[in-house]
Order: sequence, then structure tokens, then C-alpha cells
Amino acid sequence: MIRPVHLHPLAGLPLVRPGDDLAVLLQAAVARAGLALADGDVLVVAQKIVSKAEGRLVDLTTVVPGPAAAALAAIVGKDPRLVQVILGESRQVLRAVPGVLIVETHHGFVCANAGVDHSNVGPDETVVALLPADPDASATRLRGALDLLTGANVAVIINDSHGRAWREGAVGVAIGAAGIGALADLRGRPDLFGRPLRVTRVGQADELAAAASLVMGQSDEGIPAVLVRGADFVVGGGGARSVQRSRERDLFR
Amino acid sequence: MIRPVHLHPLAGLPLVRPGDDLAVLLQAAVARAGLALADGDVLVVAQKIVSKAEGRLVDLTTVVPGPAAAALAAIVGKDPRLVQVILGESRQVLRAVPGVLIVETHHGFVCANAGVDHSNVGPDETVVALLPADPDASATRLRGALDLLTGANVAVIINDSHGRAWREGAVGVAIGAAGIGALADLRGRPDLFGRPLRVTRVGQADELAAAASLVMGQSDEGIPAVLVRGADFVVGGGGARSVQRSRERDLFR
Repeated sequence: MIRPVHLHPLAGLPLVRPGDDLAVLLQAAVARAGLALADGDVLVVAQKIVSKAEGRLVDLTTVVPGPAAAALAAIVGKDPRLVQVILGESRQVLRAVPGVLIVETHHGFVCANAGVDHSNVGPDETVVALLPADPDASATRLRGALDLLTGANVAVIINDSHGRAWREGAVGVAIGAAGIGALADLRGRPDLFGRPLRVTRVGQADELAAAASLVMGQSDEGIPAVLVRGADFVVGGGGARSVQRSRERDLFR
Repeated sequence: MIRPVHLHPLAGLPLVRPGDDLAVLLQAAVARAGLALADGDVLVVAQKIVSKAEGRLVDLTTVVPGPAAAALAAIVGKDPRLVQVILGESRQVLRAVPGVLIVETHHGFVCANAGVDHSNVGPDETVVALLPADPDASATRLRGALDLLTGANVAVIINDSHGRAWREGAVGVAIGAAGIGALADLRGRPDLFGRPLRVTRVGQADELAAAASLVMGQSDEGIPAVLVRGADFVVGGGGARSVQRSRERDLFR
């Protein structure tokens, strides 16, 4: 179907605190934008507010770095307490050079600093946010809560900005997804001339996450969620976890 | 500024042939969508129609594979003539395993098959399309032609779908850009609490390319361009070439 897709920024949320009900806050933000959630909408929510609502916060003043963290911190030039927290979130350190620490998280994401981050967390300089423990489960819970509140069958994506191999610049990716297949499997579909398509699996949740990330910006504008209306997407398939390439299938790890 | 972003699919273009004037075809498609190009719009155009208009087509029946191509073709299980064409577009082969051939192109892109591709090219089974020789220059020419035709100051992005390290599924990326910085440099901007941002360089053209790719789909719907209206983006900086990470800065090549 040929129809436009609309990306509505959702602004004006209060600063999210541990225990806050994100579904209620997001429904209010949708209403402030003059909209109401409807079947087929995709709500893309910034990882940071999900982590805050879930209390995934650590005050670095409470962290005692071990010898491994201290040694790694010296290599990468980061706070040893922060490196201790990163190691706690990581399955494996993949690259460590001055200024850069790239790991595979316990979820299986390959990203800098295991997604542990200061920015936009709060006024307290020493508090960092971790990624949600299970972002697909977080997305599923939020989707369920929105369904209860509004009756609408919406998809939920939790996005974060990740760096990439080969290309400069971070882009939004889906770290959690519910109600939408993270991958659209197009195998068997024809091209314009009836032949098989070249690209057969599309990271559709990542494409939505990137689109929302563009609307959110990275700065001080306070747009922690975007309502996507009119997008065609495949519902079936796994959550964002299914996007993680296995080591066996990864030629660049 | 808090405003929605709209992604308008542009459909109904004729099959593009070498020598066609894409600016004229795209302007007509915009008009068919009930719109007119305006300052600040971003036109995202699928690589395939740019390559076709520029005559970047090769009939494999005219190609004689050399010994290197024949040997590589045996490893990856592809047509030796196709591999010959891919090698001609490549600076270096990075990975070659059964079914997968990942190269660094002469432009510097890391992608499968140097972007050489059968799908949506034409009814002739043996004709493949190459990437534009200089996609930033292609975007710049198209932008200039649209300015002459319409008087509108629009940005142009040429997108393609690339696979990624670590993550399954292809996503849209910008292989050419004009009138928009491929990277938005946010260094020095504050977060919500006045501290420096974690993510300081954003692949904004890639995020737009991904958003458009979602709207285009990969199938037989024939949406080779998307008009993005309402996006905030940084104008300065280089074209898509500036996204290419140098070997020295790339920890995963």
C-alpha cells in the first residue's frame, strides 16, 4: 500500500525515575501531541528512559574496581569504577584501545561500553545507566501495559545509538522489540521482474529505530519517544535478540 | 523544534533506462503524490535507479572471467563472470566463504558483492547493475538538476541496503549525499543536564537512508524514492564518503 509514514516526536515527559509507569507517561505524551495510540502504530522509546524506570542505575561512588577493571581502565583511559560496571555487563571484551572499549554484552550486543552511559541520566555526575537486563522483555511489558491502558495493538521498539564497523557515526538500533519482527524475512518474494530478491532479510526494527533516533536527536531537546504511524512491517519473528548474529555466522568479530 | 517528520513514498516511476533524466522523473513522481518539492526536503533515491540512469550496467555474457575471479568464484559459489565484475569494482577482498563475498569497493564501502546486483535491474537475466562510480557526485548533480527544475533547495541521499557486522538483516545506508552532512557532529552540545553528550557524531544521512528504506520496501512495490519532509538535520560536512571509516580507525576490518 502506498501511503506516507509519519514520525511524531513525543516531548514533555517528566524526568523518569525508578518505578515510574512508562505506559502512563507515554500515553500522556501521545495525548499532548494531539494523538491517540491506534492499532498498527509503532512506539519507539529511548533506552535511557526504560533503564531509568527499571532502576538500572549505578552510583559509581559505590563501586570498587577489581584488578581486571583497573588494568583495562589504564589501557582505555576511563574511570576504573565505570570499567568495573562495564565488565559486569559484558560477556567478552572485543577491542580495547585508548578511548575505545567495545564489548559483547550479556545480551549479545556488540557495542561500546556495554551501553553503560552517563548522558541524560540525571543531575548526579556519578550515576550511570545500564541497558535493561532483558530489553525484549521490557518492550513486551510496555506493549502489554499500553494495550491495557489504551486498547491499542501497538508495536514497541526500545532504541539506542550504536557505533558500527566500517562506518563513522552512531545510528539508532533496536535493542528491544515487541509486536514487530526485528527482522523481516523476504525470502521467496519476487523483485520487479519476478526474480528472487537480493536482500532477503531486512532489519526492519533497526530501520525504525534509526528513523526515530533521527527525530529524537541526541541533544537537550528531550524527545525520548517517537510515535511511528503508517509503517508497513512484518509482525512475526523474534525480538531484537534475534538480530544478534551468532559468532559462527559473524565474519567480523 | 518539535514537529513531525513525514516520509512520502514516490511511486509510479517508469522503468529507468540509461540516459533518463532522473530529476524530471522524480519531480513528476512528487507531483503525482500531490506534493511539490520545498526547501528543507530530503529526497532519498534508491541506488538502483541512479545506476540505471547513469548506464552502470554490465551484461555478464560480455564478461570473460580471469583466473583470480574463477578461483574466488569456486570458493564463494557464484558465477565467475559476476565475480570478475565484483573484483573490477573492488579495492580489496575482505571475506570470502561459501555464499558470501565481502569487499572494500573503490569508493571505500565495505559491502557484499561490491554492491553489484541483479535484482530490479531489468528483464534480462544476465544484466547486473554496479554502484554509481561516485555516488556523492551523483547526488550533487541530481540536487543541482532539481534546483534548476523546481527552485527548491533540497538535500539528496542515494541509499542502498547493506549487511552489517554483528547484526543480522540488511539496513538502508547512504552511499551518496548532497545538501546534507552525512555525519552530524554534535561535539560540544550538552545533554539534558548540561554535560557533554556520549554520542557525538551521528550518522544522520544513514538514519534517513534507513527510514526511507523501510518505506521503499525491498519487494515488488516499485517505490524507488521517498520524500522526507520536516526532518532536522545538519547541512555542513562531507558527503557519504566522509562516513567511510579509515582503516586506521577501524578495529573490525
